[in-house]
Formats: sequence, C-alpha cells, structure tokens
Amino acid sequence: MAKPDYHIFVCVQSRPEGHPRGSCGAKSTGALFDAFSQALIQRNLLGRVALTGTACLGPCQAGANVLIYPGAVMYSWVEPQEAAEIIEQHILSGELITDRLTPAELW
Amino acid sequence: MAKPDYHIFVCVQSRPEGHPRGSCGAKSTGALFDAFSQALIQRNLLGRVALTGTACLGPCQAGANVLIYPGAVMYSWVEPQEAAEIIEQHILSGELITDRLTPAELW
Repeated sequence: MAKPDYHIFVCVQSRPEGHPRGSCGAKSTGALFDAFSQALIQRNLLGRVALTGTACLGPCQAGANVLIYPGAVMYSWVEPQEAAEIIEQHILSGELITDRLTPAELW
Repeated sequence: MAKPDYHIFVCVQSRPEGHPRGSCGAKSTGALFDAFSQALIQRNLLGRVALTGTACLGPCQAGANVLIYPGAVMYSWVEPQEAAEIIEQHILSGELITDRLTPAELW
C-alpha cells in the first residue's frame, strides 16, 4: 500500500494464563483486531488506513491497547464493539475520544 | 513510558518455510529486534524511543522491514548490523537514510 493517512496498531500480545502482567491477547484482542479490520473494510478505508497487530505496547494493566499514528494516540480498555466508533470519530472526524485515552501516567 | 519522541516498529512476522511470501521473521528478524533493543539501551534512549515488534507490515518481498513514526518512514532489507546506523542517523541526527527507504511503489 501507499503510505497510509493513519496507522492503527492493535496489541495482540498473549501471555500464559496467570501471568502477573496479564495481556491484551487474553482480553480477546483477536476479536478486537478483527473488529477493526471489519470496520475498515466496511468503510472502504483499507487504502488509507493501515492496521497492524503488535507485541506488547507497554501499559498491560490498561489493555486492550490500541495505538494510532500520527500523533501517538493510545486508547485503552478498548472493547471490540468500540472499533467502529474509533474509526468514525478518530479517523473520519479527526476527533479524539477523550474518555478512552490511555492515562497520561501510562503513556 | 511517556509518549515517545520516536516509535520504531520491527516486523517479526513468521511464516512456515516455503511460504510464497516469505517473512521478515525468516530473515532473522529476531536478531534485528534485539539489535535495535541493544542500540537503544547503549545510547540510553529507552525513555525517548519506543520499540515494538509487529505482525506483517506489508512489503514482505522487501523484508526485513522497519517502520518509524513520526513520519511513517519505512526501511527495507534491514540487517541487524544496520540498527545502530538507523538509530544514529534517523533518530539522533534526524536524517533519513535515503538508500534504505522502502521503494515508493511498496510504501
């Protein structure tokens, strides 16, 4: 693809059950990644918006985490059903979803 | 960590041997990720520069691929011994390494 206007990084890190840090993968991030993929396809945005799964982004305690460039904007505690809202508001309207931002002490 | 000044994404995607697309993982990306990690530690940059492994970034034929934000700058055919140069030139001097950029038709 050409350089995207936005790049969405979804943490898909898994860790064994009982691991003290937990993981975004354990918080059904597979479903979260799929939800972003579906939301992008439905809005015909795959040519403008890149979507990439990642290893750990850092704030495991606040997972599942989603990081968007430009701007290094991270959203935390993201549920699959919120993917469409993030696409609509952040990507298409250019507005932050302020109540879902990762707390400043974590990112 | 606080929001980083730079975020380096290293593709660590693996695919089975003989897969037609190949993979960055097969091109010793484990060593590449470690090389970036070492280069950042040695320069005391871990507070300013984030490093994250990713799934496929797209241009598999040009792997191993490394993507740096801000700017969505992608470098291709990156070898572990080039990690230090990328840190020095791109991150510390703010200059692109033009002959290692991913070709425009791929990114």
